[in-house]
Amino acid sequence: MMDKINQTINGIKPLDERAMAGARMRQDNLTKPKGSMGQLESLSIQVAGIKGNPRPRINHKVIFTLAADHGVTQAGVSAYPSEVTPQMVYNFLHGRAAINVLAQHIGAKVIVADLGVASALERTPQLKDRKVALGTHNMAEGPAMSREEAIRSIEVGMELVEEELTKGMDILGTGDMGIGNTTPSSAITAILTGMDITAVTGRGTGLNEEGWKHKVKIIEKALTFNRPNPKDAIDVLSKVGGFEIGGIVGLILAGARYRIPIVIDGFISGAATLIATSLSPQVQPYLIASHQSAEPGHIKILEHLGLIPLLNLNMRLGEGTGAALGIFLVEASLKILDEMATFAEAGVSEKT
Amino acid sequence: MMDKINQTINGIKPLDERAMAGARMRQDNLTKPKGSMGQLESLSIQVAGIKGNPRPRINHKVIFTLAADHGVTQAGVSAYPSEVTPQMVYNFLHGRAAINVLAQHIGAKVIVADLGVASALERTPQLKDRKVALGTHNMAEGPAMSREEAIRSIEVGMELVEEELTKGMDILGTGDMGIGNTTPSSAITAILTGMDITAVTGRGTGLNEEGWKHKVKIIEKALTFNRPNPKDAIDVLSKVGGFEIGGIVGLILAGARYRIPIVIDGFISGAATLIATSLSPQVQPYLIASHQSAEPGHIKILEHLGLIPLLNLNMRLGEGTGAALGIFLVEASLKILDEMATFAEAGVSEKT
Repeated sequence: MMDKINQTINGIKPLDERAMAGARMRQDNLTKPKGSMGQLESLSIQVAGIKGNPRPRINHKVIFTLAADHGVTQAGVSAYPSEVTPQMVYNFLHGRAAINVLAQHIGAKVIVADLGVASALERTPQLKDRKVALGTHNMAEGPAMSREEAIRSIEVGMELVEEELTKGMDILGTGDMGIGNTTPSSAITAILTGMDITAVTGRGTGLNEEGWKHKVKIIEKALTFNRPNPKDAIDVLSKVGGFEIGGIVGLILAGARYRIPIVIDGFISGAATLIATSLSPQVQPYLIASHQSAEPGHIKILEHLGLIPLLNLNMRLGEGTGAALGIFLVEASLKILDEMATFAEAGVSEKT
Repeated sequence: MMDKINQTINGIKPLDERAMAGARMRQDNLTKPKGSMGQLESLSIQVAGIKGNPRPRINHKVIFTLAADHGVTQAGVSAYPSEVTPQMVYNFLHGRAAINVLAQHIGAKVIVADLGVASALERTPQLKDRKVALGTHNMAEGPAMSREEAIRSIEVGMELVEEELTKGMDILGTGDMGIGNTTPSSAITAILTGMDITAVTGRGTGLNEEGWKHKVKIIEKALTFNRPNPKDAIDVLSKVGGFEIGGIVGLILAGARYRIPIVIDGFISGAATLIATSLSPQVQPYLIASHQSAEPGHIKILEHLGLIPLLNLNMRLGEGTGAALGIFLVEASLKILDEMATFAEAGVSEKT
């Protein structure tokens, strides 16, 4: 049943060291002091290794905004009602949400997919209908989904990547929409990093102190009841995860398999990244952390994964908004690498 | 003699509170949790106040890369020879330097101006010839320039802004090119923040430990010899400054006067900002700190000015490269403010 996932994982190879050495040598010969573009230099070298090309470019940028609902909202863990999930999906389809604005700003396409919104959505060609179920169950009272559904959600993410690959996608950003989804993300983070629930749980869309305490209690209850096995990431996803989170796991695994730079968004994408790296540690070098979210659990995830975020703007929206800004910086780094003159070309004297 | 500078300073007004209130109200009604776009929200509100418009846009982005030479390079304070300054100016004019690549990436124009390169440059329509002198004198042995030259360099910066205003400029980024110019910048920073020279002096384009110690000694010598008066910013500029630094002071004063958002680059622009705010504290709300440079003195400047940088990518190139990335984020913030749907427009439920 895990055939497709296992095949994808088995296809993930290390970065191309030769392409990286070529990119590094070129960076050192461009008309600027060595290392003076900082993280943009290392970023360009990483992408060279991902793509197996010492001077890669990106032209077809895609951000995947995956939507699903969460049964745990019944337990009162979010400041917004569940009906906002489908309402925001329509907002995405009308092109008026934050992710649309930022994607257009960077010249990226947004793929909106329904992985498990808890209501029937109007069918339109712009919406990818990949519903695994009508939302998860309340994880405080039982597993969020079956093991089969967890696997299916990952497969959907992989299939979305495969579809866009045929259209030329050469970089991807992850994104999410799902009222209540910081709750499963905190649960996943607690289990897979071994940290205290209180250290990885935040205020989501805007809980007060009392609401935050209640959220922590619900997560404790879900973990006590379900006892997800930290050695089995699919078990974690099925017991305390979400369909959009599983979908993002699939985006990451397939992205690494097909050598696409994976620009990860904030906290929800981070929780999915924990699951993906638990399934296959080889995805790590394919990951680019776009930003550090204001959700307190996110920095713990980044530290756990050894990822340094490009931005820290105190954002906490999701949708792929951080990923969009990160993709802009990746493209900047690749243009620097490809377009700048070398010392020899420009006739500029080198360091004395 | 300070007529133009004083007139400009007298024309600087506070931000427009009404436009800011309008922008804040709109941000709070857009389809996202309140505050969830973090620093991008406050940035858009600041620009609304600068422009006096609750939904401002930017269309004509200009980055000023001002070049000049420094007599103090004779004292061996830089890893690169002075001849690199004119060589890099030609590299800018050929469009192959880092600032050209990043400016094109964000759709900005680069204005390259010679404020004081120590050699005659080929005349081309792309280069603004605004030479105040053929480089500064060695500040370790006397004042870098006369008071008249310091004033003239500031006036040149103001004139450059006025020229671009007639062509529609609605945001500006600062930038510099000048081998040796971290040395005067550290001297200015030490004097105007009152900090130790060692705390605000870095390795510039790549000094080793011994070179760094020598640089600190030269700055000590320059400050002991010249005794710049910290209460008189023009005195500081003339004794231990540079022509491009004076030019950037002019960009900042005129930018604030004409209500243009001023996106400041790294350490050299930061030193100029210290002089500008010393001449006129009212420029502060017009400033946007694009990034935190790897030069250790820069964070001290930002703290002194109460500015929070948008990016921290360990960059230390100058030219306006940080400003270019900052302008991209300013534009992103304004598109969010202007283009997103409100809760009412999108039919999305608000917080419960």
